[in-house]
Amino acid sequence: MRHNRGMGEHGTGIIRIGVIGGGQLARMMVPPAIHLGLRISVLAENEGSSAERAADVVGDYRDPETVYAFAETVDVVTFDHEHVPQPILRELEARGVQVHPRPDALQYAQDKILMRQKLAELGVPVPDWAAVANEAELQQFIDAHGGRAVVKTARGGYDGKGVRVVSQADEVRDWFTALAEDARGGFLLVEELVEFTRELSQLVARRPSGETRTWPVVETVQEGGVCAEVLAPAPVADAATLAEAARIGQVVAEGVGVTGVLAVEMFETVDRRVLVNELAMRPHNSGHFSIEGSVTSQFEQHLRAVVDLPLGDTSMTAPAAVMINVLGGPAEGPMPVRYAEALAAHPRAKFHSYDKQPRPGRKVGHVTVTGENLDEVRAAARAAAAAFE
Amino acid sequence: MRHNRGMGEHGTGIIRIGVIGGGQLARMMVPPAIHLGLRISVLAENEGSSAERAADVVGDYRDPETVYAFAETVDVVTFDHEHVPQPILRELEARGVQVHPRPDALQYAQDKILMRQKLAELGVPVPDWAAVANEAELQQFIDAHGGRAVVKTARGGYDGKGVRVVSQADEVRDWFTALAEDARGGFLLVEELVEFTRELSQLVARRPSGETRTWPVVETVQEGGVCAEVLAPAPVADAATLAEAARIGQVVAEGVGVTGVLAVEMFETVDRRVLVNELAMRPHNSGHFSIEGSVTSQFEQHLRAVVDLPLGDTSMTAPAAVMINVLGGPAEGPMPVRYAEALAAHPRAKFHSYDKQPRPGRKVGHVTVTGENLDEVRAAARAAAAAFE
Repeated sequence: MRHNRGMGEHGTGIIRIGVIGGGQLARMMVPPAIHLGLRISVLAENEGSSAERAADVVGDYRDPETVYAFAETVDVVTFDHEHVPQPILRELEARGVQVHPRPDALQYAQDKILMRQKLAELGVPVPDWAAVANEAELQQFIDAHGGRAVVKTARGGYDGKGVRVVSQADEVRDWFTALAEDARGGFLLVEELVEFTRELSQLVARRPSGETRTWPVVETVQEGGVCAEVLAPAPVADAATLAEAARIGQVVAEGVGVTGVLAVEMFETVDRRVLVNELAMRPHNSGHFSIEGSVTSQFEQHLRAVVDLPLGDTSMTAPAAVMINVLGGPAEGPMPVRYAEALAAHPRAKFHSYDKQPRPGRKVGHVTVTGENLDEVRAAARAAAAAFE
Repeated sequence: MRHNRGMGEHGTGIIRIGVIGGGQLARMMVPPAIHLGLRISVLAENEGSSAERAADVVGDYRDPETVYAFAETVDVVTFDHEHVPQPILRELEARGVQVHPRPDALQYAQDKILMRQKLAELGVPVPDWAAVANEAELQQFIDAHGGRAVVKTARGGYDGKGVRVVSQADEVRDWFTALAEDARGGFLLVEELVEFTRELSQLVARRPSGETRTWPVVETVQEGGVCAEVLAPAPVADAATLAEAARIGQVVAEGVGVTGVLAVEMFETVDRRVLVNELAMRPHNSGHFSIEGSVTSQFEQHLRAVVDLPLGDTSMTAPAAVMINVLGGPAEGPMPVRYAEALAAHPRAKFHSYDKQPRPGRKVGHVTVTGENLDEVRAAARAAAAAFE
């Protein structure tokens, strides 16, 4: 905390958190901020963003002066996304602004090649990978890995964007061309195509002063590169796999020095290894279940962590919780058109609207159901989510 | 809903709720509004109110034009308190504004004598009572009821204010004087002093279209006329008492035609009768436990009810929930001074700040703990609340 400008100078005890990015993650930080008595403001990209209610500033997070001016109004800066350029983040720190996660940590969530290098350095198991500068290098990797591989842009991908499974290097020629046109040059990341039985996610929160808390390992079910369902806790992984996933989460959180919430997405391979797939340094889709499913939600925990308040208990509130994303369908009308009938049919389901205009495939909300029995909870959550689509 | 001005005209599917009053009840309506995708705005009494974050307008709820202008910006008007004058509410309805609860219902929460008359008409058991216009009438009631009675102002009391236990009529001479000076004249309410074993509260939500949902009956523990602890569900009342409390709650909700959340505060007498003490037509201190303790909180349910959306499940999320109010101490500093140590010592406790300047006896927040065993939960909640005081 910047006690010199925050609690100290004003003597009001009020802690102000600034969130860069106005998406649903910022939006869902607002409720716990209200309950904790923290003031939250948002630098949103545009009018009508998901977190508009809390948005004090609308502006471009790539514009240094916009970000510096926003930072002056708060005690700590945190993020709804990982896209704020490193030079801006480092200048914020040089000016004495508290930034969490710190740029030194955030870089590993911003650049997948840096991330792979860091994980290798930490001894964390990952798929076989290489940074490739041209088609020849890529084809060599593909040929050495059974004729298929996963190619990713190092930066800017999300929800399956910037990821292609290829068997010929020329299938990503456009990406190499774009890299060549970018004055900075650069590499693509190529990875072995992992045969996995399921995907797991370990959420970890860590404070600047070092305390960490982990949630139970969850299973994430992807459809078309987008998280569709999250089952908490992960229902079928064996104890050794869960322990390994938890161990990896802890090693990564400490190793990269994250502050705030970290999501470590992992594969459980057919031969029972656990490999890290992606990192996110913010509340994450795989943790939305925690709003109802945990004593302390990932959103509350993220706020506590970035202001260096003690972290809350992360126990489950029920034996099972299932979260299902609601995707916007064709623009035949706003989602709430069927809101009443969906709520009437599913009184136990907790619906979360992101207040976004629906577009096909766009995440416009999610549904969580908690209960005693995973199969029943999953069926109830699927039925409730379907009622909104 | 005013479909003609809300969902219909704009075609945006956005429903706007206006809350008159900027206290902690309005504040705690904001989180569920965010999750439900409802837009909430608040007409607050002053800058720096508890719900300031959501306050679009600061103004006097007793000023008709202020209220009418605020109502023009929303689809439905509801309340943080019961103090908006009836003529303003009735004019709002005359102008076609949706007001919930409706003035016809709200009058019974605004005037304790009207309330007693209505409850008598509904056949609901209440303490013996009378409306008295002068000291002679009051003394007669006192003498007929064992030499002591409870006198209440018909309007404006809360948290023990406007309530006195007296044995001589001249102990409320100031109130009779004030009534005489008020051009409208009026009466005081006098009631028998009830010997009770415990106090109970039944929360009920009711939609304009008639659907009702009740929460489990809770026990409320008062200190100095202020709610101190709430135990959910009520731990020691026998089944017949619980059933009677639930029946009364339902009869009152239907009988007064409430829309939104209704709290019916009751006494369980030493001879096992259940008598209605007070009504509140809004989310109520006895329902704060429901934020963590129920599948659907009273704040979410109130919003659903006032916009006539289907009501949510009110089951407990755990066998026991205990809520304890945090009262502001001497103004030695803002409460968050000890926030970190309190959170560190009580990771399972959920703290809710009202973001108010502390004053002795002022409710500045509350703590809720949920769990398996009531005694353990109560001890944990007391310890956590004490850490903030």
